[in-house]
Amino acid sequence: MRRAMIIALGGGKKVFPNPLVGAVILSPEGETVSEGFHEFYGGVHAERNALEKAGDVTGCTMVVTLEPCSHHGKTPPCADAITSSGVARVVIGMKDPNPLVSGKGIELLRNSGIDVEVGLFEEEARKLNEVYLHYIATGRSFVHLKMAGTLDGKSAAADGSSRWITGPEARKRVHEYRRNSHAVLVGGGTAVADDPELTVRDVQCSDENQPVRIVFSGSALPEKLKLFSLPGRTVVATDGQENFSNAAEVWKDIQTPGQLFVKTAEQGLGLILCEGGGSLAALLLRDHLVDRLSIFTAPALLGSTGIPLVGDLGIEGIEQILRMEDVTVTKTGNDILTEGRVVYRVD
Amino acid sequence: MRRAMIIALGGGKKVFPNPLVGAVILSPEGETVSEGFHEFYGGVHAERNALEKAGDVTGCTMVVTLEPCSHHGKTPPCADAITSSGVARVVIGMKDPNPLVSGKGIELLRNSGIDVEVGLFEEEARKLNEVYLHYIATGRSFVHLKMAGTLDGKSAAADGSSRWITGPEARKRVHEYRRNSHAVLVGGGTAVADDPELTVRDVQCSDENQPVRIVFSGSALPEKLKLFSLPGRTVVATDGQENFSNAAEVWKDIQTPGQLFVKTAEQGLGLILCEGGGSLAALLLRDHLVDRLSIFTAPALLGSTGIPLVGDLGIEGIEQILRMEDVTVTKTGNDILTEGRVVYRVD
Repeated sequence: MRRAMIIALGGGKKVFPNPLVGAVILSPEGETVSEGFHEFYGGVHAERNALEKAGDVTGCTMVVTLEPCSHHGKTPPCADAITSSGVARVVIGMKDPNPLVSGKGIELLRNSGIDVEVGLFEEEARKLNEVYLHYIATGRSFVHLKMAGTLDGKSAAADGSSRWITGPEARKRVHEYRRNSHAVLVGGGTAVADDPELTVRDVQCSDENQPVRIVFSGSALPEKLKLFSLPGRTVVATDGQENFSNAAEVWKDIQTPGQLFVKTAEQGLGLILCEGGGSLAALLLRDHLVDRLSIFTAPALLGSTGIPLVGDLGIEGIEQILRMEDVTVTKTGNDILTEGRVVYRVD
Repeated sequence: MRRAMIIALGGGKKVFPNPLVGAVILSPEGETVSEGFHEFYGGVHAERNALEKAGDVTGCTMVVTLEPCSHHGKTPPCADAITSSGVARVVIGMKDPNPLVSGKGIELLRNSGIDVEVGLFEEEARKLNEVYLHYIATGRSFVHLKMAGTLDGKSAAADGSSRWITGPEARKRVHEYRRNSHAVLVGGGTAVADDPELTVRDVQCSDENQPVRIVFSGSALPEKLKLFSLPGRTVVATDGQENFSNAAEVWKDIQTPGQLFVKTAEQGLGLILCEGGGSLAALLLRDHLVDRLSIFTAPALLGSTGIPLVGDLGIEGIEQILRMEDVTVTKTGNDILTEGRVVYRVD
């Protein structure tokens, strides 16, 4: 199963809105017969890829990270291919919560006499597909909020200058985040103040893997911003009150971040990296929209006149504090990277 | 030398304003003959303690963490005791920068024909005595600033509530810091807002080891504060404009933190733990008075309405950022402890 998960990662961000899936076929003696993974959305599924590469699989076991599909989508059902292949046993990481599948694939396999085991390394299987599972559950993109500041929570000095609070290792990590994401999002204030490129630079990245750049802004943006002149796709998401003739692409009538992330999911942008600023970060946190939080902290201080890392969260008393869970702390060069999920209070 | 350093620690905070010193006597065959350390200010020095416990030390080597003294203080010079003992060789961690010694002890030993080596593990020897060395160099106490807040640099919510941002492991660590310190310092604002006890509680501590409590305040303080009713010594340091009849002990004419730390050093309080608040922390940082900085960070957010961890540092641009060096990062329960020295800019 671990091997199946590793090869599943080969699909990267190209499979969305499909899940990442890996499959390994083992002989009755436990030797690997073949492997396959889902490479891109619309492409052949992992199970078929593995079956096609194998010869006779009679009596073999298939280990697959997610329940095989039972419906006709871009490709015919994998469950049918498995039942007709001669495979005797299927070990599944987790049930597919997609309503089109959701147990029907397992049922189809069992009804044809195949021995089916479900839930091996289920936690890891969920982690592997957190973007897909989030999309199936909410209809929205998965949002990864990244921020960088000082130990006293400032993202810039009083005059707005911030180059460079964190070191090259932290910045390299951010470029990796960008490469893994379908789109990079900033607020209008940050787009104007920092004039960022939002491209992947410090790590290898093909042109087709460059993320879409999205600015969420209620105000018009200067045409001279680098975002608008760089190759690749730039989107301005807005409530439509302003004229955005300069931007290559405008999404109007986006009133809230929640609406934005439904729109991005529809556009096949499953994983959104939000890079601030503090006001947009606070807006997303208040709307419970941040699904993963990564904060780079430089061992440095800027004092109370600095620019706050996070805007107003509407918190008055300590009992409303927003805590993180499943936290990992990593030294990244001289900086500290704290990552985890946000625990939202349900009032 | 490592052994000598470990036993030197036995003196703890009781030796100040003397240094921590450990001595080990080795036979010509390299076996340990005896050990000694400086136990408390006014007590017998490490070298004499070791010599007294040994029998005949003719031809032996003495390993000692600091240059033996050459002057008559509370006790007669150790260098004399060594030269008359028969010891053939002395290995010294570092020269004593105290102007009363400063090489004279080494000279005395060499002039009497003893083989002297200086500088073995000198860096560790300096670290061992950073409080003493700081006092000799500046005439002031060594200041350890401890703060605790969220990832976005808030020490409390908007309404001032802060129990408990950090977890029990972090609080235990703070009690260890208190036990190691001669005094615990807070600003008047924190004394009033939090009404802290500033005593060592979560870890074992004898009454005589409880730190002195100091409040640095320009305004009068309510008599009902816990600080004033608890056993032990409480000091209010002030510029003398207000009436402090309620406090057990008042130091008047303390206009600046710099003056305060000269006064504390004179009083034998060599290591001061400052626990905030943010305004006092900023004042100390602006005056380059923080010698060690420890920040506990909870993986949590409070947003921009929270109380700032550090007040105004007078920083306008990023080039003025206050960075830390020799940084260690430790997971302490769910919290992150970042410790190091502050790199002050010399304009």
